[in-house]
Amino acid sequence: MTIQETAEKIKALEIQGATNIAVEAVKALGKELRGKEWSTSGQVYNILKTSMELLIGSRATEPMMRNGLKYIDSRIHEATWSNEMGFRKLVQDAENNILEIFTDAKTKMVEVGAKRIENGDTVLTHCHSSGVTGTIIKAREQGKDFKVIQTETRPKYQGRITARELVEAGVDTTMIVDSAARHYMKEIDFVLVGADALTSEGNVINKIGTSQVALSAWEARVPFYVVSTLLKFDPVTIHGAYETIEERNTDEIWSDPPEGLKIRNPAFDITRRDYIHGLITEEGIISPHSILEAIHRHYPWML
Amino acid sequence: MTIQETAEKIKALEIQGATNIAVEAVKALGKELRGKEWSTSGQVYNILKTSMELLIGSRATEPMMRNGLKYIDSRIHEATWSNEMGFRKLVQDAENNILEIFTDAKTKMVEVGAKRIENGDTVLTHCHSSGVTGTIIKAREQGKDFKVIQTETRPKYQGRITARELVEAGVDTTMIVDSAARHYMKEIDFVLVGADALTSEGNVINKIGTSQVALSAWEARVPFYVVSTLLKFDPVTIHGAYETIEERNTDEIWSDPPEGLKIRNPAFDITRRDYIHGLITEEGIISPHSILEAIHRHYPWML
Amino acid sequence: MTIQETAEKIKALEIQGATNIAVEAVKALGKELRGKEWSTSGQVYNILKTSMELLIGSRATEPMMRNGLKYIDSRIHEATWSNEMGFRKLVQDAENNILEIFTDAKTKMVEVGAKRIENGDTVLTHCHSSGVTGTIIKAREQGKDFKVIQTETRPKYQGRITARELVEAGVDTTMIVDSAARHYMKEIDFVLVGADALTSEGNVINKIGTSQVALSAWEARVPFYVVSTLLKFDPVTIHGAYETIEERNTDEIWSDPPEGLKIRNPAFDITRRDYIHGLITEEGIISPHSILEAIHRHYPWML
Amino acid sequence: MTIQETAEKIKALEIQGATNIAVEAVKALGKELRGKEWSTSGQVYNILKTSMELLIGSRATEPMMRNGLKYIDSRIHEATWSNEMGFRKLVQDAENNILEIFTDAKTKMVEVGAKRIENGDTVLTHCHSSGVTGTIIKAREQGKDFKVIQTETRPKYQGRITARELVEAGVDTTMIVDSAARHYMKEIDFVLVGADALTSEGNVINKIGTSQVALSAWEARVPFYVVSTLLKFDPVTIHGAYETIEERNTDEIWSDPPEGLKIRNPAFDITRRDYIHGLITEEGIISPHSILEAIHRHYPWML
Amino acid sequence: MTIQETAEKIKALEIQGATNIAVEAVKALGKELRGKEWSTSGQVYNILKTSMELLIGSRATEPMMRNGLKYIDSRIHEATWSNEMGFRKLVQDAENNILEIFTDAKTKMVEVGAKRIENGDTVLTHCHSSGVTGTIIKAREQGKDFKVIQTETRPKYQGRITARELVEAGVDTTMIVDSAARHYMKEIDFVLVGADALTSEGNVINKIGTSQVALSAWEARVPFYVVSTLLKFDPVTIHGAYETIEERNTDEIWSDPPEGLKIRNPAFDITRRDYIHGLITEEGIISPHSILEAIHRHYPWML
Amino acid sequence: MTIQETAEKIKALEIQGATNIAVEAVKALGKELRGKEWSTSGQVYNILKTSMELLIGSRATEPMMRNGLKYIDSRIHEATWSNEMGFRKLVQDAENNILEIFTDAKTKMVEVGAKRIENGDTVLTHCHSSGVTGTIIKAREQGKDFKVIQTETRPKYQGRITARELVEAGVDTTMIVDSAARHYMKEIDFVLVGADALTSEGNVINKIGTSQVALSAWEARVPFYVVSTLLKFDPVTIHGAYETIEERNTDEIWSDPPEGLKIRNPAFDITRRDYIHGLITEEGIISPHSILEAIHRHYPWML
Repeated sequence: MTIQETAEKIKALEIQGATNIAVEAVKALGKELRGKEWSTSGQVYNILKTSMELLIGSRATEPMMRNGLKYIDSRIHEATWSNEMGFRKLVQDAENNILEIFTDAKTKMVEVGAKRIENGDTVLTHCHSSGVTGTIIKAREQGKDFKVIQTETRPKYQGRITARELVEAGVDTTMIVDSAARHYMKEIDFVLVGADALTSEGNVINKIGTSQVALSAWEARVPFYVVSTLLKFDPVTIHGAYETIEERNTDEIWSDPPEGLKIRNPAFDITRRDYIHGLITEEGIISPHSILEAIHRHYPWML
Repeated sequence: MTIQETAEKIKALEIQGATNIAVEAVKALGKELRGKEWSTSGQVYNILKTSMELLIGSRATEPMMRNGLKYIDSRIHEATWSNEMGFRKLVQDAENNILEIFTDAKTKMVEVGAKRIENGDTVLTHCHSSGVTGTIIKAREQGKDFKVIQTETRPKYQGRITARELVEAGVDTTMIVDSAARHYMKEIDFVLVGADALTSEGNVINKIGTSQVALSAWEARVPFYVVSTLLKFDPVTIHGAYETIEERNTDEIWSDPPEGLKIRNPAFDITRRDYIHGLITEEGIISPHSILEAIHRHYPWML
Repeated sequence: MTIQETAEKIKALEIQGATNIAVEAVKALGKELRGKEWSTSGQVYNILKTSMELLIGSRATEPMMRNGLKYIDSRIHEATWSNEMGFRKLVQDAENNILEIFTDAKTKMVEVGAKRIENGDTVLTHCHSSGVTGTIIKAREQGKDFKVIQTETRPKYQGRITARELVEAGVDTTMIVDSAARHYMKEIDFVLVGADALTSEGNVINKIGTSQVALSAWEARVPFYVVSTLLKFDPVTIHGAYETIEERNTDEIWSDPPEGLKIRNPAFDITRRDYIHGLITEEGIISPHSILEAIHRHYPWML
Repeated sequence: MTIQETAEKIKALEIQGATNIAVEAVKALGKELRGKEWSTSGQVYNILKTSMELLIGSRATEPMMRNGLKYIDSRIHEATWSNEMGFRKLVQDAENNILEIFTDAKTKMVEVGAKRIENGDTVLTHCHSSGVTGTIIKAREQGKDFKVIQTETRPKYQGRITARELVEAGVDTTMIVDSAARHYMKEIDFVLVGADALTSEGNVINKIGTSQVALSAWEARVPFYVVSTLLKFDPVTIHGAYETIEERNTDEIWSDPPEGLKIRNPAFDITRRDYIHGLITEEGIISPHSILEAIHRHYPWML
Repeated sequence: MTIQETAEKIKALEIQGATNIAVEAVKALGKELRGKEWSTSGQVYNILKTSMELLIGSRATEPMMRNGLKYIDSRIHEATWSNEMGFRKLVQDAENNILEIFTDAKTKMVEVGAKRIENGDTVLTHCHSSGVTGTIIKAREQGKDFKVIQTETRPKYQGRITARELVEAGVDTTMIVDSAARHYMKEIDFVLVGADALTSEGNVINKIGTSQVALSAWEARVPFYVVSTLLKFDPVTIHGAYETIEERNTDEIWSDPPEGLKIRNPAFDITRRDYIHGLITEEGIISPHSILEAIHRHYPWML
Repeated sequence: MTIQETAEKIKALEIQGATNIAVEAVKALGKELRGKEWSTSGQVYNILKTSMELLIGSRATEPMMRNGLKYIDSRIHEATWSNEMGFRKLVQDAENNILEIFTDAKTKMVEVGAKRIENGDTVLTHCHSSGVTGTIIKAREQGKDFKVIQTETRPKYQGRITARELVEAGVDTTMIVDSAARHYMKEIDFVLVGADALTSEGNVINKIGTSQVALSAWEARVPFYVVSTLLKFDPVTIHGAYETIEERNTDEIWSDPPEGLKIRNPAFDITRRDYIHGLITEEGIISPHSILEAIHRHYPWML
């Protein structure tokens, strides 16, 4: 796909999920850069800048995509090359490297998370996250016997996607409405959710309702874990900017509301680090307060 | 309607809402008692007992209905009568009295609640409660200018009923998904919800999700009020029994779930007195800890 | 003094302190009522109403004054009289009774409070309250050896009045700025403050800053007591109205501020019942949640 | 037994448990009063006073005994009698009445408490309380299937007495050290403890360690119930006095400590009303904030 | 100025503010070192030591000054030089470098902080801090429209200095007494204060009252930010020493107190890391728990 | 001792205390490795593996031992050697180095901790920890005057060991039962306990009851410190594994329990990082959230 096509598919939600979006954007950028004839580095930098802006502009809250593109960008700016072949190789290497970083991070994170689940546990989860389902299914494959309680996750019912995946993998799964999370909290051993973005203060941005589940867990002394690769860290948050909370179409909530009724449909909310026992990442389980240090260790090019 | 018909309509949700159910049950019992020829008080007591059991059995968590029926029962047991006419008058009086108590309680409660709303306030509410909408609309009729944020209230979307009523009454109303309550809590001046039952410890049983809203309000130092007549006090709670939490049909949550998926659908949850600033009742605004004393003052026949 | 004069002196802060104001207002009303020639009860009711409005209008947050006047009002409305002498006696009796109620309440309250102070205690107090200084000095007179830490209480430095009274009574007293209350909280055995008004939810309205001291005490598990007669209960709060928080002259904060600067000067704040261990009253030490029941027991004419 | 003998046996712990002590003291007082020849009521009052002081002085924290004696005292002071027979009957009636009040209160309380236990529950308890074991054994006799976790309760190991009683009654019982209460809190459905005294603020005085268990329960959102008749209310607390916390012999902790080591051995601690979900009493389950009102309703002679 | 003069001016508060003090002390030390004829490094080290002690002794809680002097000290100890010119250049370089570090740190910190302020925000601040006013004025210069609520900050009224600066910069500013911070907390979007020192545990030492404001913010879920360069980290805290809390002249509180009254006037208090959402520093916004790691990254010479 | 003997003595509790166990295990491994004739590195690796498994298997929760052995293991794997003498020197060096690391860590930690104790302090401690007694005795040797309150620490009464050591060192020491910790919390300036293991989330595993003491300290705003070298960090926790909580013999609790009684005897519990003000380590006092970073800085070979 071209940059243009990829950006459009992201905008239209045809490409979904933080990892998918990041992978496709990285591939599109790689293809674009390799596919042209270069004369000067200035020209390269120009195309790079335009392409990245187009891709980044396709979705507001996608730090993983932004980090992936930034990786290629930083590799190109650091390197020198004297001919087209040198440049193409450079791009290809960068692309391969970051895609491998993506894959490795997820594999390690899922392994760590699966260890955390023990026989007899009841785990609560909210929304759909490939990190969470990956972790749970991995633990099931390891022969562990446990239960999952899953919220339906209004307005888009992503909880149903999770439920299908888990039931198919043979996991004992129970669905509840979002409002019932606190009611069942006493039966829960720990909560496991994904993340859309991680901030420099150690907070987590995830599907609307996550912070409410976290609060109920905290109230009942139930551990609350976030499964997320460090690649979802958003470097702009360190510079004082807040993640923008995307507002989605009100049709998702009520397609034929009475005239005069306002509807608000924020996609995400912010969960304070104080409600989070640990981030399950490619480094292992860490305190959310340490997110910045983990980035410094693993992905200094992000900062 | 006969006792039988009324009980069936309650069971089938054709009669809904704590007050409606209580009124119809009281009327059915009155009609039943007045409609037969009596010879002995023993026979009366027998029919009374059977009729009450039938009505009470039609719905698990309806203390207001139970209290209404108990009122007639206690009036009949206290009184003496020598002929049919005396008995009919007794029944008619008791029926009239309790219906008037119902009406008066609601009228006063709504007046108190409406005073609590001030110009510029933003009020959050959850589910549908005629006490809450009555209070809000009353305040609007008094010319007050304020906003309401309303949850949709899955799985039955009762929030939509509330929203329609409020929008029609000219109230500035915004709908959100249940999961977004905490996200908007910082904009809220106070929360206003109804009740299905009040317990002797001062806790409130209401639509699933209420306790989660209460927790978010408490976290953010936002006052949380329950609008409820004292008639919803459940006397069995003082004797150590817990309100049973009704579980409803799982179709309400997902009508065609994947095979193997379990679904749980509790109708209510319990909000601890510590999260409740005040009960807005026919006595005025009281601390939930005082519920038992308020019952002793107003409705000693309940105990 | 006439009603008019009394009202003016209250407005001008020449008469200060909840008890003083209540006493003077009661006396002025008594004098007014006894000092005229009566023909009909209708006329009496009229003068009563006008006089009370004038006095009540002189100060926003003075429930004790309002309760005192209401007592006389209720006595007059309950009673019958056939001649002027009968009426004068009625008024005189009512006046005497309520003034005696005032005195008795305070005496008992101070006795209870003084028992609460033990040798070796360190007590923190804020602002000036005759109930608090009465209690502390009583304990000192009983030979108890303890320390008091006193805030200065900006903007009017009422803490200095308290400090003078305590030092003169031989109490070991230390003054701090208002901001230092939390810093010294670890040395405190309990906090003792007065009240301007008590609400039906069990909250206490008192000098600005009281709720901040209460919060710091709560954080450190230090008991927080309010010394107040039940006569400061504000019956309007039960009907859904909030105490109005009086805003005072900004000169008290800064007499020559730079142009363009806004200044806000609220006289009181609200302390939540959850931060209050006990109310020290004429009934003894009670939970603030029980305020309404204590009123029902002692002063049913208030409601 | 004579007054003297009874007082000595209480002091020597030969008579133990709040109810036993109260019963024996009441009987001794009754016997003493009935056993002498009377001429004047003044003489009676004198003996009454001396006898009560002797009995009350035998143990510091025994409000139930004090309340029982006070009941007889108040009955005698209220009554008139013209001859010895009249007086003896009066004493006998008062004695019988208060002993019946003791028995009735306990019976009702245990019935209420037993209802609170449900199949499948795990209940944590601390120390030994006949109210608690009575409640648990009652529930077991009703055929309920549940578990109990019991602390050993250092230094006197009263938990072992409880454990024996429960195991003999066929209750599934597990013993832990006191320090492990928090570790097992997540498995607990509710906590059930007894009381030595109830205060006017709604706090509970019970075996050392109770407040620590209550704190752990509160942290984990686990309900905490106190089983106690209202007869353990201590009226002096309303007047500002604190219950004295008895310090017991240090031998109970370590009989041969190294020289120079200090040992402190307080028998009780104070659990704040905020950590207590409900008091299980002869009136039913009530909020601890309502204790004073319950006393006014049931035992006004206490106040 | 000589070392001696500078130290005296600091002691007399003629030089004020952490940055000013640090700058002047660094300059004085540089001048002193460059102004003498050297023969041996031993002699240099001696003068260095004496000068630093004199400057450091002029004020207890000034880690930024101490860090600045330590920087020069460490540069001199690391370096080698063979003649006077070499030494002078070394000193001059070190002085220039640390002054540049000071300036850069502040510039970056203010930029980060200004981004955090958004249109429509209401920001609460306490005392005077050039970092805070710098941040606010920067945001105003960027055309943002927001409000500031400012405490007067007894006893020295530094809030008036802040208020003047903000009003002159066209910021919508409202002043309140220190005690009113909690009362207005519900209107606040976030709190912004400065720091006198940062500790290794992540706590912040700042003007007395800061911890009370932080507690009120925490209670109401209002974010609390500290604007401070990392240069205010106090390395001695890592070795187990506590910052000494300076006690100032009691005249600042009351110049003519009644005889016998004690007055305490601590200049600072300690705000726990748990109440702090983020430190706004030259590195960006970080969790206070990460302070030690930020120092390792930026200023390893401090440790 | 041979590997076999050492492992047996550890299992039999003849070697006790984290440091002792680690030292003996390291020595046994060193002796084993140096004591055989080698031909190939493969054979070495084999013996190394077998020996380590034997030692590690002797006790479940001993990360310090595991870290010590791992150090030698990593040194051997990194190194090359061509002859037996080279190998023996390598082993000897590694053994000496890690034993020196052990000693240095403890010395520094105790120095830091001793600085934290100030004249007039009252310090609470639980169980026995050589780090804690080392710290306290060091502070006493420095002439500081302070008090210690010590729990007896059921079931093994390790508190008595602590008490003996402290009394012999001239420290003013008071013993209480474990249940009395909260009762005395108001008199405590800070809590000081040891650790058996530190986890990657920043939590501390220590003697059963520690988390309960921490909770009581947190409730009362009393600082809670853990004295532990970083060598007790358990690297497996970062990979998602939980420390296993060892269950010990039930005889320790009750040697002749009634038949049918179950007994549970967990040796440790987990204290959440949020209740811990600081870790007192060889690096200084750090936030528990930073544990992972401290390991990266000091002992990267652990990870």
